[in-house]
Amino acid sequence: MADARQYLAVDGLFEMVDGTLTTPTVAYETWGQLDKQASNAVLLFTGLSPSAHAASSDLDPSPGWWEYMIGPGRPIDTDRYFVLCANSLGSCFGSTGPASEDSVTGEPYRLSFPKLRLEDIATSAHLVARHLGIEQVHTVAGGSMGGMTALCYALLYPGRSRNLLAVSSATRSLPFAIAMRSLQREIVRDDPNWQDGTYSRETPPTNGMRLARKLGMITYRSAEEWAERFGRDAIRVEAAGDTSNSFDMRFEVEGYLEDRAIKFANGFDPNCYLYLSRAMDLFDAADHGGSVAMALASTGLERAQIIGATSDILFPPEQQIELADGLTGGGVDVQFELLDAVQGHDSFLIDAERFEPVVRRFF
Amino acid sequence: MADARQYLAVDGLFEMVDGTLTTPTVAYETWGQLDKQASNAVLLFTGLSPSAHAASSDLDPSPGWWEYMIGPGRPIDTDRYFVLCANSLGSCFGSTGPASEDSVTGEPYRLSFPKLRLEDIATSAHLVARHLGIEQVHTVAGGSMGGMTALCYALLYPGRSRNLLAVSSATRSLPFAIAMRSLQREIVRDDPNWQDGTYSRETPPTNGMRLARKLGMITYRSAEEWAERFGRDAIRVEAAGDTSNSFDMRFEVEGYLEDRAIKFANGFDPNCYLYLSRAMDLFDAADHGGSVAMALASTGLERAQIIGATSDILFPPEQQIELADGLTGGGVDVQFELLDAVQGHDSFLIDAERFEPVVRRFF
Repeated sequence: MADARQYLAVDGLFEMVDGTLTTPTVAYETWGQLDKQASNAVLLFTGLSPSAHAASSDLDPSPGWWEYMIGPGRPIDTDRYFVLCANSLGSCFGSTGPASEDSVTGEPYRLSFPKLRLEDIATSAHLVARHLGIEQVHTVAGGSMGGMTALCYALLYPGRSRNLLAVSSATRSLPFAIAMRSLQREIVRDDPNWQDGTYSRETPPTNGMRLARKLGMITYRSAEEWAERFGRDAIRVEAAGDTSNSFDMRFEVEGYLEDRAIKFANGFDPNCYLYLSRAMDLFDAADHGGSVAMALASTGLERAQIIGATSDILFPPEQQIELADGLTGGGVDVQFELLDAVQGHDSFLIDAERFEPVVRRFF
Repeated sequence: MADARQYLAVDGLFEMVDGTLTTPTVAYETWGQLDKQASNAVLLFTGLSPSAHAASSDLDPSPGWWEYMIGPGRPIDTDRYFVLCANSLGSCFGSTGPASEDSVTGEPYRLSFPKLRLEDIATSAHLVARHLGIEQVHTVAGGSMGGMTALCYALLYPGRSRNLLAVSSATRSLPFAIAMRSLQREIVRDDPNWQDGTYSRETPPTNGMRLARKLGMITYRSAEEWAERFGRDAIRVEAAGDTSNSFDMRFEVEGYLEDRAIKFANGFDPNCYLYLSRAMDLFDAADHGGSVAMALASTGLERAQIIGATSDILFPPEQQIELADGLTGGGVDVQFELLDAVQGHDSFLIDAERFEPVVRRFF
């Protein structure tokens, strides 16, 4: 497949909140042209699992993870904006993470990779922006973990971003979301193949990853969507009179989860998953100002758009309201949009009909 | 500990929907006195995990799982009613289940136990009622799986119950709930110690059970409750500057889940858990009439009280409405109560303040 990835090789040491990396790499993709004043950049952060491939391009025509949102004439219009998306530090799609080789030891980092925080992801993308000559971005944007990281960027670098677009994100994770992610991590770690992170390439903890991903997927969607998708009248696939006790899959929803989870488990490094998952739990906007309210009062943002989905159980509407109210209290001109989208936390990736016009209005 | 359990030893064969048991046992407890006409019996079904010990008594003064609801002067008043609660067939607290010895082979049933359905649990309790001389119960009642089983009883034995109390139950499980329970079962089955159900007494799949129970518990409560319980400002327990990468527990909510899950994993038989969990998924009121509506039109009930909790994500309010509307359509005098209770699916076990007066009104 063609590759649109570019790479920033960081020279020397990269200081993280809880450690140091030596000469890490940050992978990124860009769309559109940076104007002469370098004033039209949209810095986009990703959710936990995607690469930097947010949209198709001539170099890589495969659809990106936010394809409907980014491109010529689309809400984030690449005829007007220069869009930059970095693969998260700690991930496994070109940026340095636990699966990468430590240039000092010549061995994969594994668990010697420093504890990862969203602050580190924000900082690594900031290096890319500066490398490209961007001192201030027009908008910092993202959904889910990407929305938290975008907020984190605004908190870490006051005045470096004029606008914020945060979709289905939060100032910090609720105990419910932490419990769900903690359990996913524990399931991976309890796979005997995990081997305290030292699993081989040949026998990674694929089974734990598969089960963890199923749990993740259940929380990313909503009960309403699944009731619609799988129907209320035909959810059983078992044949009548089947007395098997194998406890094999008998329901449509089980087969759906299995297929998708296997794909993910075969494509994502388990240690990277653990690090990124924990980074979401550790983020707390209050770390940047003594309290959430004080932090949100210090961004220097001009405008923000905060979007949530009514059916999101991981980052529910009240968290979007908290974020919108906090920024408003900090003097930011906030557009708050609560969309009646049925696909839960993942709605922003799927529900173009509802999200497209709203984001278009903001840009 | 003193034991209030009594046992019905079924003579000969017990026909299940999908198989047969030879001379099974059903454990039960009772409270209050059966009147001369045997007209004051309340038949109570349990959720997935409890025993028949729904309330304390002289013989067993330890608190039961619905202690606040049952007793002299309580909503289900044992000065007026004779309350009968059976340990579910397939469970492991006195009734015959997969962990019991098959009287034919002398070996534990394990996976040779026939596929279990809520119909089988209802039928086994019906045998106990008849054994006690009860031809028609005043009320059949239960919460969660117990509410589904109570409904199942009313569908299986039209005219055998005058009233129904179904709390946080459903006419069938939504795909979301099925997905959550299916994943719990898969986690248990993927524990290497499960051994296709042939685990030894010494090395049961405790780890899988522990993880599965955590997932169950997360779905039994609500995000709101946990935000209150663990606070929005103090959910992290890690020390600042802790750079450990052990991925050990760092959040209060993780420790809470761990303690409770270990207790459960050490006290519940894994195969019984699998059977009971699947029985909830397999139940569909439509099996008793061609459609849910047709089934609910055939109960012969006089009155029903349907109670739900607004924060229940497993059996959400719309399922309570479906059940209430269906019974009303079937000519039943229905009291529908949607309580603004914060503890999710488990609210009825905890929130005495909200549930007590409502159930009292019904009785």
